[in-house]
Amino acid sequence: MSAPLRLGVAGLGTVGTALVRLLDENGPVLAARAGRPLEVVAVSARERGRERGIDLGRYRWHDRPLALAADPEVDAVVELIGGADGIALDLTRAALESGRSVVTANKALLAHHGAALARLAEAHGATIGFEAAVAGGIPIVKALREGLAGNRVSRLFGILNGTCNYILTTMRETGRSFEAVLAEAQALGYAEADPTFDIDGIDAAHKLSLLASLAFGCPPDLAGVETEGIRHVSALDIAFASEMGYRIKLLGVARLTEHGLEQRVQPSMVRIGTPISQVEGVFNAVSVEGDQVGATLFAGRGAGGGPTASAVAADLADLARGDRHPVFTVPAAELAPFPRSPMAQHVGAYYFRLMVVDRPGVLADVAACLRDHDVSIEALIQRARNPGELVPIVLTTHETIEARMIGALTSIGDLDAVLEPPRMIRIESL
Amino acid sequence: MSAPLRLGVAGLGTVGTALVRLLDENGPVLAARAGRPLEVVAVSARERGRERGIDLGRYRWHDRPLALAADPEVDAVVELIGGADGIALDLTRAALESGRSVVTANKALLAHHGAALARLAEAHGATIGFEAAVAGGIPIVKALREGLAGNRVSRLFGILNGTCNYILTTMRETGRSFEAVLAEAQALGYAEADPTFDIDGIDAAHKLSLLASLAFGCPPDLAGVETEGIRHVSALDIAFASEMGYRIKLLGVARLTEHGLEQRVQPSMVRIGTPISQVEGVFNAVSVEGDQVGATLFAGRGAGGGPTASAVAADLADLARGDRHPVFTVPAAELAPFPRSPMAQHVGAYYFRLMVVDRPGVLADVAACLRDHDVSIEALIQRARNPGELVPIVLTTHETIEARMIGALTSIGDLDAVLEPPRMIRIESL
Repeated sequence: MSAPLRLGVAGLGTVGTALVRLLDENGPVLAARAGRPLEVVAVSARERGRERGIDLGRYRWHDRPLALAADPEVDAVVELIGGADGIALDLTRAALESGRSVVTANKALLAHHGAALARLAEAHGATIGFEAAVAGGIPIVKALREGLAGNRVSRLFGILNGTCNYILTTMRETGRSFEAVLAEAQALGYAEADPTFDIDGIDAAHKLSLLASLAFGCPPDLAGVETEGIRHVSALDIAFASEMGYRIKLLGVARLTEHGLEQRVQPSMVRIGTPISQVEGVFNAVSVEGDQVGATLFAGRGAGGGPTASAVAADLADLARGDRHPVFTVPAAELAPFPRSPMAQHVGAYYFRLMVVDRPGVLADVAACLRDHDVSIEALIQRARNPGELVPIVLTTHETIEARMIGALTSIGDLDAVLEPPRMIRIESL
Repeated sequence: MSAPLRLGVAGLGTVGTALVRLLDENGPVLAARAGRPLEVVAVSARERGRERGIDLGRYRWHDRPLALAADPEVDAVVELIGGADGIALDLTRAALESGRSVVTANKALLAHHGAALARLAEAHGATIGFEAAVAGGIPIVKALREGLAGNRVSRLFGILNGTCNYILTTMRETGRSFEAVLAEAQALGYAEADPTFDIDGIDAAHKLSLLASLAFGCPPDLAGVETEGIRHVSALDIAFASEMGYRIKLLGVARLTEHGLEQRVQPSMVRIGTPISQVEGVFNAVSVEGDQVGATLFAGRGAGGGPTASAVAADLADLARGDRHPVFTVPAAELAPFPRSPMAQHVGAYYFRLMVVDRPGVLADVAACLRDHDVSIEALIQRARNPGELVPIVLTTHETIEARMIGALTSIGDLDAVLEPPRMIRIESL
């Protein structure tokens, strides 16, 4: 067997510790598959003395992560610090400039600087492995880059944030509010103390921009991702969705339209019984639709030490074997941006809920607004009769153009009997 | 861009034709991802003149497939002839001996001769790509070999035959008999005129033995796969399964037990609501459980020209980029066989159905047989009372050892009131 691939690991939090443990426990298996051993030789982390349950005495310690990129005994750098800029960016740049490949779980870094880092990697004969940055242990980066290489992808969509999926699943199962379930998720460690990145869809947008780059051969375009989180998803809408045969998921969707590339992270309704609708709790899933293969689905745990370390190990095995791929599948110089397909041109079906005063004629007014904007009703629920009081009306539409839908909802929102801004959720056709 | 990878294609049926079409339609995309063009230069098939809707005039024609392995302009051979022996085996051997790698969709060939062919490939610096041989377009071979390389796999299971899944799905949806649905599937082209390979589980067993080899690092052990097809699955059992919260699927399962490697292809009950239970019709799916990643699921179309050509193209892209992997993940010399874990030692829950004369005391006798063999009842349905007539009783058990279950069923089958041999179906815990 050849000489080991010698690793410098920056960051020893949950994932870094899990990686060290994986290499300890599964080292021989991984070496047999990779053709040579993978060996951590140097590490760097914030607190040297912290108890991590692993023996760090075996490794050279660097106080500065950047030193890993200059350590002559380090062949490749594993970046597990996180953050779009700062040390993670500096370390990645320095490693690539020295000709060392980088394996990272850092979606923010690549979503913001991916194209530039890909050029830098190529210029120095190195590469960046980021299987761990998207959908945890699911080998979806490899699937898009290699396993489905023969396909033109028309659409991909996925549940890319386990925290949001856990919250939405629990809201549905318990009927409780977003705030209550978020607080519980924080107590259980499923959500961060500052949950913004997760629940506002930013984390999912990072991941979506990377998947879109791999699938469509464009530079990651994070700013082009229309992003809406789950703060405004109500228990009421989840219950109505179930009644109408849907689940509400925070979906990331990227697809080619006649106007360009549409990228969006939004609460979306998916028909109950479809594979994606069954992905519950902290699980992630990605569906890729290719012109040859048809619809595929990849599911698994999207976060956590073990799954993320599993993805890091896969990238390291590729490096060890000498498999080299351009960072985003095609050479950086060939990455071609698409025009952004505007949301106003989005074509799809819609769910919306109105809170109206229950009096005769309201529904006629609503229907007239829809007709005036050429939007056709698919189904309607107006449950409790409660004359003079506030009651919900929910409707689903047939496929239409978003501009029309927005026009109709603006008119509807202006009606006297409609007392709250209409709540609208897109229905993803599957 | 580098020189093209020049291909010799043997076999121009559905898959061969779809591959030529894929390379025509998606050639530039695939070349960008593979780092060089993929170019068919020579072909061989049974009937030269057959109308296939593709222009074969561009390629050198060989009457004998074996000539592809000696064509100086062919870099790699695509074997799409099929069959465990005969021409497919001769061609694969000749190509490997000449140092040419082989990409194949031939599960029978590899299930029977995989270990020997892997040794031959290594001896000549070549490899064999067989993504297309298992689960059609789903990149599961790559996932096991590379994407999940950091894991020790404890169990994998899957729906590996689309014909059987289509038949079982249709039987459930329509309540019709196996024979009626099979005849319809044959008329629709979803089942072969001679459906033996599919419905008796042989095709799934081929695939399972290959997946097990990849996951566990052992030579494919087809003879070690306990195989039972779907001929004896009745509409009655499917209906009872639904009533008890299960779907019946033809599952291939490979797992490590304390006794060795257990491999089986059998009609199995899976709890409704689990991801695998939602895989319907001609779709395939494979679930892999790893010590790091946890449970994963990969789903997509398991057959057909496009999906299979997609898998062939992925293997060809690997060859074009120069990615080289041992055929079964680890070098052939390191493949280590496991003892076969005997089915008598299988641990699991069971469903069984009895046809009994409806008279007092029958259930007491059945319960006594179970008690005598230390098998404990989980649920029971005895629906229609029809004194003196034949009625079904169905039971599910808690986890037990198969030897005990067989003992109990033998005693039960000997009871006077039990008029047909008990029908038993294993419940797969998920």
